[in-house]
Amino acid sequence: MATLKDVAKEAGLTTSTVSRILNNRGYISDNARQKVDVAMKKLNYQPNEVARSLHRKATNTIGLIVPHIRHPYFSEMISNLEDQAYDRGYRILLCNSQSIQEKQTEYINICTGNQVAGIILCSGSVPMDLFEEVGIPVITMERFLDNGTASVECDNRQGGMMAAEKLISCGCKHLLHIGNIGTITMPADQRTEGFREACEKKNIPFVELLTEETQYNSMKYGDLIVKALKEYPETDGMFANSDVIAAQTLQVCRKMGILVPEQMKIIGFDDVNIASLTTPQLTTVHQPVKEMAEIAVRLLHDAVTGKMVARRTVLPVHLVERETTGVRITQ
Amino acid sequence: MATLKDVAKEAGLTTSTVSRILNNRGYISDNARQKVDVAMKKLNYQPNEVARSLHRKATNTIGLIVPHIRHPYFSEMISNLEDQAYDRGYRILLCNSQSIQEKQTEYINICTGNQVAGIILCSGSVPMDLFEEVGIPVITMERFLDNGTASVECDNRQGGMMAAEKLISCGCKHLLHIGNIGTITMPADQRTEGFREACEKKNIPFVELLTEETQYNSMKYGDLIVKALKEYPETDGMFANSDVIAAQTLQVCRKMGILVPEQMKIIGFDDVNIASLTTPQLTTVHQPVKEMAEIAVRLLHDAVTGKMVARRTVLPVHLVERETTGVRITQ
Repeated sequence: MATLKDVAKEAGLTTSTVSRILNNRGYISDNARQKVDVAMKKLNYQPNEVARSLHRKATNTIGLIVPHIRHPYFSEMISNLEDQAYDRGYRILLCNSQSIQEKQTEYINICTGNQVAGIILCSGSVPMDLFEEVGIPVITMERFLDNGTASVECDNRQGGMMAAEKLISCGCKHLLHIGNIGTITMPADQRTEGFREACEKKNIPFVELLTEETQYNSMKYGDLIVKALKEYPETDGMFANSDVIAAQTLQVCRKMGILVPEQMKIIGFDDVNIASLTTPQLTTVHQPVKEMAEIAVRLLHDAVTGKMVARRTVLPVHLVERETTGVRITQ
Repeated sequence: MATLKDVAKEAGLTTSTVSRILNNRGYISDNARQKVDVAMKKLNYQPNEVARSLHRKATNTIGLIVPHIRHPYFSEMISNLEDQAYDRGYRILLCNSQSIQEKQTEYINICTGNQVAGIILCSGSVPMDLFEEVGIPVITMERFLDNGTASVECDNRQGGMMAAEKLISCGCKHLLHIGNIGTITMPADQRTEGFREACEKKNIPFVELLTEETQYNSMKYGDLIVKALKEYPETDGMFANSDVIAAQTLQVCRKMGILVPEQMKIIGFDDVNIASLTTPQLTTVHQPVKEMAEIAVRLLHDAVTGKMVARRTVLPVHLVERETTGVRITQ
């Protein structure tokens, strides 16, 4: 296998110049850079990333901590983050915390031990003090972290208001909202706040239900929804905190003989793939996942390179109207 | 921050003994090991993984190359692989190749440059010669690679046969199969072979359609399905190569006024979450994703530690019968 020395010899440069080029240190002429490029290709030289990063003190790896790879919102988000990271020359070290405390702690240690350039955190229940001394940028997505570098969110409050206003404008009189995990505080709680505000403004009664972490992890909300619809049989409009919950509500309604959208209107959140594969298709609040991912990676890169970054970035959402609020699809 | 020297001092051992313990080299007494453990915890010492792996020549990272994070089959598979890897002390370097040639090549270089312990490859169109000289174990999942270390597959042929037999036993007379990407050879092609064999055995006419890589990447099959059902209006039974395709077929049938399961039976493949969230719910061939992930990580670990590994492991599938073949769901 070719070594740095071989490349230097082939390029007619000193090894220290080649090393400087590979590590982007000091002034380097375009001519020298090109010579090294040609020599590397000719010799099929693979720089040893591990040795290089030891030298640089930070790798070009981003530690990505998510609670739940298989949840469609996160698989969509991871996919977009990977795209953006790749375009900027970063790779992703994927950490699936599953909201398990011990695993989160260990993964943060793995990230710092591997000298990642920064962390993108999508996991909700990581205790803040774990990040006190990491000394690298931490970008949070749809999560709060007082000592984080920057946060990227969608306008959850606006989304909750839109959902309530739409249900009310459809003539719903008894609203039900299935919200966030009760024990964890996060930006998504503002969906509930926005929903509540819009209902109160219009004087429409509503019920709010919180969910549990076990339901979130298993993605199984069936029992909760059945119980809710039995307890509140007058419900004619429902706003669910995710498309996963909304899709399961459709299944429950079908089993209970409740017609959607005739007897019940449903609005989800996220606008993942599944929203247009249910029957009827889901009306939902669209999160700009692609743009959120783009901004998160840019913020991380800016923070790594010492630029000033916005502490908080909130992107707008919009309502995608489909059949569960009465829109008819045509081919 | 605590150093190796601090740990050695605290434990009352030499730095070389502590280093040997951290790197698992040579004989180490349980007593010494315990002392180091206690000292590390007390000082909150984080070994520098980058420096350690430079020393060891291989990291405990697995390079995971997938074509498509957002596809529900892969997000389920990644999630399971991460679980299994974590349990064995490996972390995952996630590479989303998107079947882009250039990206695949670059990611393989990133993996080798980062001295991953091994690669798990779920991506179909990676040219074999890229792996000729990687010198590390390569475990393929649902993919062929002549010079791979080991492959893990589900019994695709059996799945295809089961699907055909079920459709025929439901009374279908004109079958349609939407199969794999036409330009890539992979184990999933055997679903088509099994399907064909069962149809021919029972003398039932069938149409086979191949798909395109662009459809796979975008997960948009609507136009293809519309065209197929217009061209073959007599179709009364369909076997789709994934639940994603099957779910989209349901939407097309609805728009075209074809009743499922009355006028058309549908069977998917994978048994991902979406299969039980469509209306009607999808009958599908269940892939044992959890077991496949477990075996893949075990094979990789065995190969890394120099054990003999099975060249090929094929796990059984089973048919999950739901509404698209006429089963009635009850609450």
